[in-house]
Parts: sequence; C-alpha cells; structure tokens
Amino acid sequence: MRIAVDAFGTDKAPFPEVEGSIHAIKEDLCNEIILVGDEHILQAELDKYYYDHNRIRIYHASERIEMHDHAAEVVRMKKDSSMVKTVELHKNGEADAALSAGNSGAFMAASLLAYGRIKGVSRPAIAAALPTTIEQPAILLDMGANVDCDAENLLQFAQLGSIYFTYCYQKPNPRVGLLNIGEESTKGNALTREAYELLSAAKDLNFIGNIEGKEILSGKFDVIVCDGFVGNVVLKTIEGVVRAVFDMLKEQLEKDWIAKIGAILSFPAYSFLKRKLDHTEFGGALLLGLNGTSIVCHGSSDAKAIKNAIRFAVRTVQSGFVQHSKDYFRER
Amino acid sequence: MRIAVDAFGTDKAPFPEVEGSIHAIKEDLCNEIILVGDEHILQAELDKYYYDHNRIRIYHASERIEMHDHAAEVVRMKKDSSMVKTVELHKNGEADAALSAGNSGAFMAASLLAYGRIKGVSRPAIAAALPTTIEQPAILLDMGANVDCDAENLLQFAQLGSIYFTYCYQKPNPRVGLLNIGEESTKGNALTREAYELLSAAKDLNFIGNIEGKEILSGKFDVIVCDGFVGNVVLKTIEGVVRAVFDMLKEQLEKDWIAKIGAILSFPAYSFLKRKLDHTEFGGALLLGLNGTSIVCHGSSDAKAIKNAIRFAVRTVQSGFVQHSKDYFRER
Repeated sequence: MRIAVDAFGTDKAPFPEVEGSIHAIKEDLCNEIILVGDEHILQAELDKYYYDHNRIRIYHASERIEMHDHAAEVVRMKKDSSMVKTVELHKNGEADAALSAGNSGAFMAASLLAYGRIKGVSRPAIAAALPTTIEQPAILLDMGANVDCDAENLLQFAQLGSIYFTYCYQKPNPRVGLLNIGEESTKGNALTREAYELLSAAKDLNFIGNIEGKEILSGKFDVIVCDGFVGNVVLKTIEGVVRAVFDMLKEQLEKDWIAKIGAILSFPAYSFLKRKLDHTEFGGALLLGLNGTSIVCHGSSDAKAIKNAIRFAVRTVQSGFVQHSKDYFRER
Repeated sequence: MRIAVDAFGTDKAPFPEVEGSIHAIKEDLCNEIILVGDEHILQAELDKYYYDHNRIRIYHASERIEMHDHAAEVVRMKKDSSMVKTVELHKNGEADAALSAGNSGAFMAASLLAYGRIKGVSRPAIAAALPTTIEQPAILLDMGANVDCDAENLLQFAQLGSIYFTYCYQKPNPRVGLLNIGEESTKGNALTREAYELLSAAKDLNFIGNIEGKEILSGKFDVIVCDGFVGNVVLKTIEGVVRAVFDMLKEQLEKDWIAKIGAILSFPAYSFLKRKLDHTEFGGALLLGLNGTSIVCHGSSDAKAIKNAIRFAVRTVQSGFVQHSKDYFRER
C-alpha cells in the first residue's frame, strides 16, 4: 500500500504533511509514502526526523497550487505542481491513492483530468464524514464540488454515498436522507421536491425521507445528500457553531473561580468531546465517482489530521470502493 | 400598545400562549393582549390565573391551522381559524401587531392576504435573530418564506434586513453579508454570484462581502442574507448542533464522578450559555416587507418564549419599522 501525499496543500505546508507522513509510517499505516513537492525543502524537513528511508521518498514538483487559484484553469497551467504530480503518481500506478489538503476544487479538477469519471457518473462529488451523537459517523455529500445541481445529480450522490458507506464503514443498506426544510414529501424547493420523487422511486436505495438540519448530527441517517452549495454552507456552519459554543463556554467558565475549578475537574470530558467534534479526527473527505482514489483534507489540517487521512486513504483502497462503484454503475 | 396573539399556534397550545400573555401583562410589556381562539378553552385556561381582566381579552375563533396544512390554501379555507382572525385584528386596527407560533408559511400567507406587501417589495421574508459570540445578535434572512429566489430577491432581503437592524436594534449602517461558500467574489452558485454583483453595486447598503457558514455566530456580520431554503437549513442546523454538543457534553460529564462534580461547580456557566443559545430567549422572527407587523414564533415555544416574543413585537412596533420600510421603498 503506497500513498502519494501532496506536501504543499495545508496552510502550514509542508510541516503537517511531512510530520503526518512520518507518524503514519511509524504506526505502520501503509508501506510507503511518496511526498510530492520541492525536493530541497522536503529533504531539509525530513532530515529533522528519524524514519525508515525505504518507506518515505520524495517526488519533485516545482510548483504549488494556491487556495485562490481558479480550479479548472490552474491544473492545466501548473502542470508541475505538487497536486498535479500527486494525482499522476496514482494514475501511473506508482501510488494506490492520492491525498491533498490544498484547493479542493483544483484537486477535483486534477483528479478528473488524470483518471476521469466512472462511466455512468455524471458529476463526481465530495463526501465528508460528520460526528454524530451515536458512535458511527454520518456522511454528507456533496460538500462543494457541484454548487448547482439537478435532481439526477442528487440521486447519483445518494447512490455513490450508499456504496461508500456500505464498503468503507462496512454497513450495508445505509439509511439515506435528503437534506430539506421539512419532513413531508411536499416540502422543499424545486430541486429537492424533484429529488424526493427520484429517491423514493430508486428501489436499490434505503431512502428513509427528508432530513432537517437539526437532525444532521442525530445519527438517524447514514448518508445525507444535498447540492454542493448547501453542503458546503452546512459543513462550515457546523464547524463554526461547535467553535462558538466552546469559545462561549470557555469565556463563561473563566468568569468565576468556582466554575473554573469545576472546569478543571471536568477537563477530560471536554477534551474527549472536543476530540470527537474535531474535524482533524475524521481524516479526509473522499472524492466519489472518480476512476481513482483521491482524498482531500482541510487546509488547516495538522500532522494528526494528515496521519488520519492517510489511514482513511488506506481503508478506502482496501474497501475496494472504486471497483464497487464501477460495478454498480456498469450494471445500470 | 395592543398585541393580538394566536392562542393555537404552539405544539402545546394554548398553554404557552395563555401563560406567556399573563406574564407579559404582569411585566407590563404592553397595554392589552387579545388571545384569539376557542373561547371556552381559553376562558377555562385563563381562569387558572389572577390577572387584570381589563388587559387580556378573548376573541373567538372556531378553527385551528395545523402544521401540515398547505400554507396558501388553508388561509382561504379556514377563514375562522385563530391565525386568520389574529391578522385580521391587526388589519382592522384593533391590535398593533399580530403574533403566532403556528405554521409559518400559513402565517405569511394570512398576513399577505390581510395587509399585503409594502409597495416595491416583491417577496416578503422572515428574519430570525441569532446569538453571536459578541453581545449583539445577528439576523439571518430569508429563513424559509422563499425557497427559490433570484438575485433581486436577495438584494431586497439585504435592504429590508438593514432597515430592521437599523431601527429595531438601533444600530445604523449594519454590516451586510451574503452567505456563500467562500470569501472571494467569484465563489458561489449562479444565484450568489449574481447577488454579489447587485449587493456590491447597492450604494445605500453596507455590504462587506461574502460570509461563510463558520462565521455566522462570529458577530462580524449584522445582516446575513440567503435564500429561504439555505436559511431554513442553516437555522435548523445551528439548533441541532447546539443541542448535540450539550447532549454529548452531558453524556461525557455523567461518565465519571469527578467530571460530574466539576459540572456541578460549573453549572452557572452552562446555564448562562444554554440560555444565551436558547431560541426561546430570542423572541420571535419578524416577517419583513409586509404592510403590517407579524411576528412568528417557534412551534415548540414555551410561555417564556411567547412572553419574549410579545416584548419583541412591542419593540418592533415602537421602532416604526413598517413605516421606515415604506419610506425606503417609496423613494426608490
């Protein structure tokens, strides 16, 4: 198992990428990691660590894709960028998966250019795993690859998400929900009302109905579908609300010394919860519908997040997700 | 100052409506409350309390609009419903504002039918107040009245929201943000990209740019605009995340006795925060763009929420919001 890691994706690149890769190899999560990017910078950074030189190697790339770069154009213009080289390593069979914490739109474009879509899939999507009040996470898609969708797209997101959940989480027949503004079938905008019809008619899906925003973290749904605009807004809203609640709680706890002592005693409970809700624990988000395995991480990922994303990439490859997706869409 | 209250709106109607009205009068929030609904039920409920009989009266209505009723049809079919009678009392000048915790779509339809739109406003909207990490709330609109919008609608939401914030919160020149998936002007779906252009060109608005989901509770924006589908999903997501965080925290705190003692010591901090984030503290949501004052409350409102909504209704009437809106759109 070999993972290609774009070493120039995070806000603090290449430090989290290099450290995360070192930890992944130390924990034996995969056999080999190929760090992609400027070889001088990467070698200097790697030299700070003790590690098995046979299991981490550098693949040189002179350019870097920035967050503000225009996704579709940049992958054609920056052919020698670390991101483009990362997906090419996977395409050429030198790596079993490609991982980047850079511009997710550009990563989708680069992946599409390198290995294309699965036949039968019209719009690949990005699926994020969310913590829930139960043990098992829920996945939300699309989280931003397709900002304007039609009902057919949402149906395919549900299909891809169900395959993902079935094989990556080993839970067959996942419960699919359509993110909407009410539980009744007649609720919603033009898009979701039409999508409801399609999802209800899809016999091979376990569509259990509309899901309202307040149920996203409830664990009652496994696969939650929406267009990429709504998904992206919701994902960032969840992130912001969790941060705001902890910030407000901290401020309150620091206001009086009895509450502060209480907080010290309760510290393990807080830190467990923070960890549970922390996106860095969830590894990366998977690009679905591609003829390859691309994992995208949050730009603010730290070494732990990168390491978890490498673990997630390995698990995804082992699950045979791409092949299962191909089989599904071939049979249709 | 007289407020007409639909006494059959909440899930537990008419108990919260009656008790909330009693408290509002006891706290002298307004001069008179007209409770609208079945007179026998309401009289029996009122008889449980001591109150000033000159300041709370019953206005009989035999029907009740349900949450699953189709909004546009029901207001024409259930002419003798408590909701329709409530708006009529305001229309006829017997009350200065109408308040309901029932079906918000139906309440919008009933209000439109009774007093119509302000000239120049094409789509009235519902604005909710949200708690932020700073003292002052932010308002989000539309929160569900218009699930499919065009860019012009979003521009009007920004204008109505700015007038609301200026007069109801007495903060002129409120900072307007467009809810979007990135800060850059080129980000977004077809709707938000076009709306960005219109908002940037509107000289009388203090448009400060796109706002991502993670900033909604940050207090950096006063008026946040989006279509009603996104607004409704976001609002319910915030509600769900806050509840999930507190539930998970409670579960963790109960797992070991030291953490539990800590939680007892920190209790005032938790309860302050819960109160701050509790939608019942925020009074109602205002229907903007109407030729009258309609306030809609959450269906799960308790007596405290109803009382706060009455206070909010009074403040809105006193602010002259409707007249200021009329003046604004007349000059355009």
